[in-house]
Amino acid sequence: MAANLARAGFSVTAWNRTPGRAPELADLGVSMAATPAEAVASADIVVVCVSDTPDVEDVLFGPDGVVNGARAGTLVVDCSTIAPSGSWDFAARLREHGIAMVDAPVSGGSEGARNATLTIFVGGEPEDVERARPALSAMGRTVTHVGPIGAGQAVKAVNQVILAGAYLGVAEGIVLAIKAGLDVEQVVGALGGGAAQSWVLTNRSGRMLDNDYPLGFKVALHHKDLGIALDLAARLGAVLPVSALAAQLESGLMAQGHGDDDMSALARAIRGLSGLED
Amino acid sequence: MAANLARAGFSVTAWNRTPGRAPELADLGVSMAATPAEAVASADIVVVCVSDTPDVEDVLFGPDGVVNGARAGTLVVDCSTIAPSGSWDFAARLREHGIAMVDAPVSGGSEGARNATLTIFVGGEPEDVERARPALSAMGRTVTHVGPIGAGQAVKAVNQVILAGAYLGVAEGIVLAIKAGLDVEQVVGALGGGAAQSWVLTNRSGRMLDNDYPLGFKVALHHKDLGIALDLAARLGAVLPVSALAAQLESGLMAQGHGDDDMSALARAIRGLSGLED
Repeated sequence: MAANLARAGFSVTAWNRTPGRAPELADLGVSMAATPAEAVASADIVVVCVSDTPDVEDVLFGPDGVVNGARAGTLVVDCSTIAPSGSWDFAARLREHGIAMVDAPVSGGSEGARNATLTIFVGGEPEDVERARPALSAMGRTVTHVGPIGAGQAVKAVNQVILAGAYLGVAEGIVLAIKAGLDVEQVVGALGGGAAQSWVLTNRSGRMLDNDYPLGFKVALHHKDLGIALDLAARLGAVLPVSALAAQLESGLMAQGHGDDDMSALARAIRGLSGLED
Repeated sequence: MAANLARAGFSVTAWNRTPGRAPELADLGVSMAATPAEAVASADIVVVCVSDTPDVEDVLFGPDGVVNGARAGTLVVDCSTIAPSGSWDFAARLREHGIAMVDAPVSGGSEGARNATLTIFVGGEPEDVERARPALSAMGRTVTHVGPIGAGQAVKAVNQVILAGAYLGVAEGIVLAIKAGLDVEQVVGALGGGAAQSWVLTNRSGRMLDNDYPLGFKVALHHKDLGIALDLAARLGAVLPVSALAAQLESGLMAQGHGDDDMSALARAIRGLSGLED
């Protein structure tokens, strides 16, 4: 994502929690900083993309965090997927430093990040969202302002809930097709013209058939995101049984060492329940 | 489906279990018969489309059934969705009368039947499938030969299993979006460009938002089809927890008088669990 910002002509200074993870950035003219505070010292826009709510809090408010380096008037664009309540909290605390914030969680996996084809859901004040839009458009293909601060996170939660059903439905269908001795690839082709058509059926059923799950989007990250969605649902009184089942199956996959598989590995869980060889 | 056969130039004689259901057929030159046996007396191809395994058995082998009227050499094309074991059984019994059979269950709902845009999965001997193809192509848009007799039913079962996950995932996502106060139509638009994209999200999320479920495809029929799929799965040792959950929720909808709603009414069940007004 930093590389795509640099390619789009932005002057980028980067900081990564794990130094040396992106050596190719130097070739694109990206400066590396030793701390978040140092990275943002002359920034107009600060893009944060880490794993979970406490990680964002560390980057923003930790000892060498963003608030210790950023000027008043800076805009923080948080592309992490965290709890909407975290976005509300962090935005209020940043405001005390004269810093604005939008939440801008992304969907599209590692391919989307690499190819600048991410789908981005943005929550915040309209003027802040418009200020963020050129940077977001450099990293993603679809940028939608979906409401006030935290709304981007809520939409991301909805996305992860819909994926739980889509992946499990296809996983169950593929396992039944295998057990019934059908030509699975032909079945996928025949079903893709009807009501069963989906991105998951088209793009992930082959991995479920092969029982091989290269990334994509990690089981462990979808599990983290479902935790956010189920927590939000519990606060709001929404009851999501398929999402809860998916989170349980993903916990099992992680316990068996498959947390770094692509989330299409939900089919590994259904295969296991059905006694198909690993 | 009979009208589309007549429009394609086939000479059609029809019989319906409920007389007078299709008065428009007369204008298309379709003759009406009083019994299945009478309808098939001079037929080369007999198309059957009823609800469940016992209904097909009645039409084929009942007192005035197909075997009492059809000539040896006739081909039966069963477009009903029934148990694959039923297709095997009926094909064997018809063979004793010199009658061939293919199973050709359809997907695409009442719109698909009316507009000849059905997706059709065909199981049978290659020469029988080729003989059926012109008639099937008059009723559907995609006709795929998926294996020996019963294979069409197995593929249809896979289709209904995938739909269970797809509908429930979207239903849970829409309920969470409503509870979170999001602009649901905008959310659907934003998510439709990513991994959550599906026919169900595009075509059925609006009904879930409105909590109004015009046909489409009836809850009671999907429930019947899931029963076939879960029975097949139990015989084969496939474990399908989301499909089983969907069947239970559909049982509840039927008990509450919603069996004739479109199956997107699965969202009504999730809304009810979540305390949203009816």
